[in-house]
Amino acid sequence: MGARIIAIATSNKHKVEEINNILSGCGYRVEPVNVPKIEVQSASLVEVATFAAATAYHVLHRPVIVEDAGLFVEALNGFPGPYSAYVYKTIGISGLLRLLEGESNRKAVFRSVIALAHRGGVEIFTGETRGAISLEPRGSQGFGFDPVFVPLGETRTFAEMSIEEKNRFSHRGRAAKKLCEWLTREQVL
Amino acid sequence: MGARIIAIATSNKHKVEEINNILSGCGYRVEPVNVPKIEVQSASLVEVATFAAATAYHVLHRPVIVEDAGLFVEALNGFPGPYSAYVYKTIGISGLLRLLEGESNRKAVFRSVIALAHRGGVEIFTGETRGAISLEPRGSQGFGFDPVFVPLGETRTFAEMSIEEKNRFSHRGRAAKKLCEWLTREQVL
Repeated sequence: MGARIIAIATSNKHKVEEINNILSGCGYRVEPVNVPKIEVQSASLVEVATFAAATAYHVLHRPVIVEDAGLFVEALNGFPGPYSAYVYKTIGISGLLRLLEGESNRKAVFRSVIALAHRGGVEIFTGETRGAISLEPRGSQGFGFDPVFVPLGETRTFAEMSIEEKNRFSHRGRAAKKLCEWLTREQVL
Repeated sequence: MGARIIAIATSNKHKVEEINNILSGCGYRVEPVNVPKIEVQSASLVEVATFAAATAYHVLHRPVIVEDAGLFVEALNGFPGPYSAYVYKTIGISGLLRLLEGESNRKAVFRSVIALAHRGGVEIFTGETRGAISLEPRGSQGFGFDPVFVPLGETRTFAEMSIEEKNRFSHRGRAAKKLCEWLTREQVL
């Protein structure tokens, strides 16, 4: 009798081999299938915010906003990206700076997505700010990686700016301005 | 006229302040609500695998497996954890070793979750392996962080072992064995 086959949603052939090595002992085998595996971990900021806002609306039954942001460092291939909050909580600012020790390319982009869920659907507003990762943390305002992000054309980090100043440059400020314009124009909320 | 209020699903007061600083310009304000925000980024391995398997079953209409694994490094507060694949693709093994430079606590755990979705629901099988992060990568077998993971009681990394040897110790091998036992016992697939 041949092995019974179960589909496995992966493109990683090592996983398939390792699992089949065990399953051969009980008469089964897995075979990769080409289903688009929904990897929620690799969801983009837009997907994350859209999903979270739609879910929150479903619970609250009233208009609700979710804002999600990420810091994308060029020399680190976009790391920490959509996982910035998790990375901040685990390796922190010191970990990020360590990964960039001796690196001359300090370019980074902060991106913000605001998802507004309401009766008419989910609206998305995005903002981004280009800048660089400083050599040392500076400032105590803001949160997250603000102490090491210097927006293009500035010498101070986000954490050295008041909310008003940061909002002039910031990814979140830009997304919030678009939200403001939409609210003013649509007059539905 | 007072500002119109929109709910925002966050516990981050900085976000609320920054967004309100902009929205005051258009007569709105956000107020934090206590809805459990579904942060798909911070989903655990079990949640990720369950969701992916259920979704794949919905598309395929046949039994399907999703395996998800993560490396949790103690000195890095569990980083890279559920985001190991993303972290491997961005900062890689060299980034992980850099974060641990000079660190004497090299303890780490590899965890694997196999989610099997079938007509009767989603079954979960887990496995974990304790070990340590080596000082340098060694070996060319396996994948991901295998070249720097030495299971407890061994001197070789996972990447220095054949599939059969790795499966004796490995998180994925242990999860797959539980799947095997379940398949044998239940006889439903």
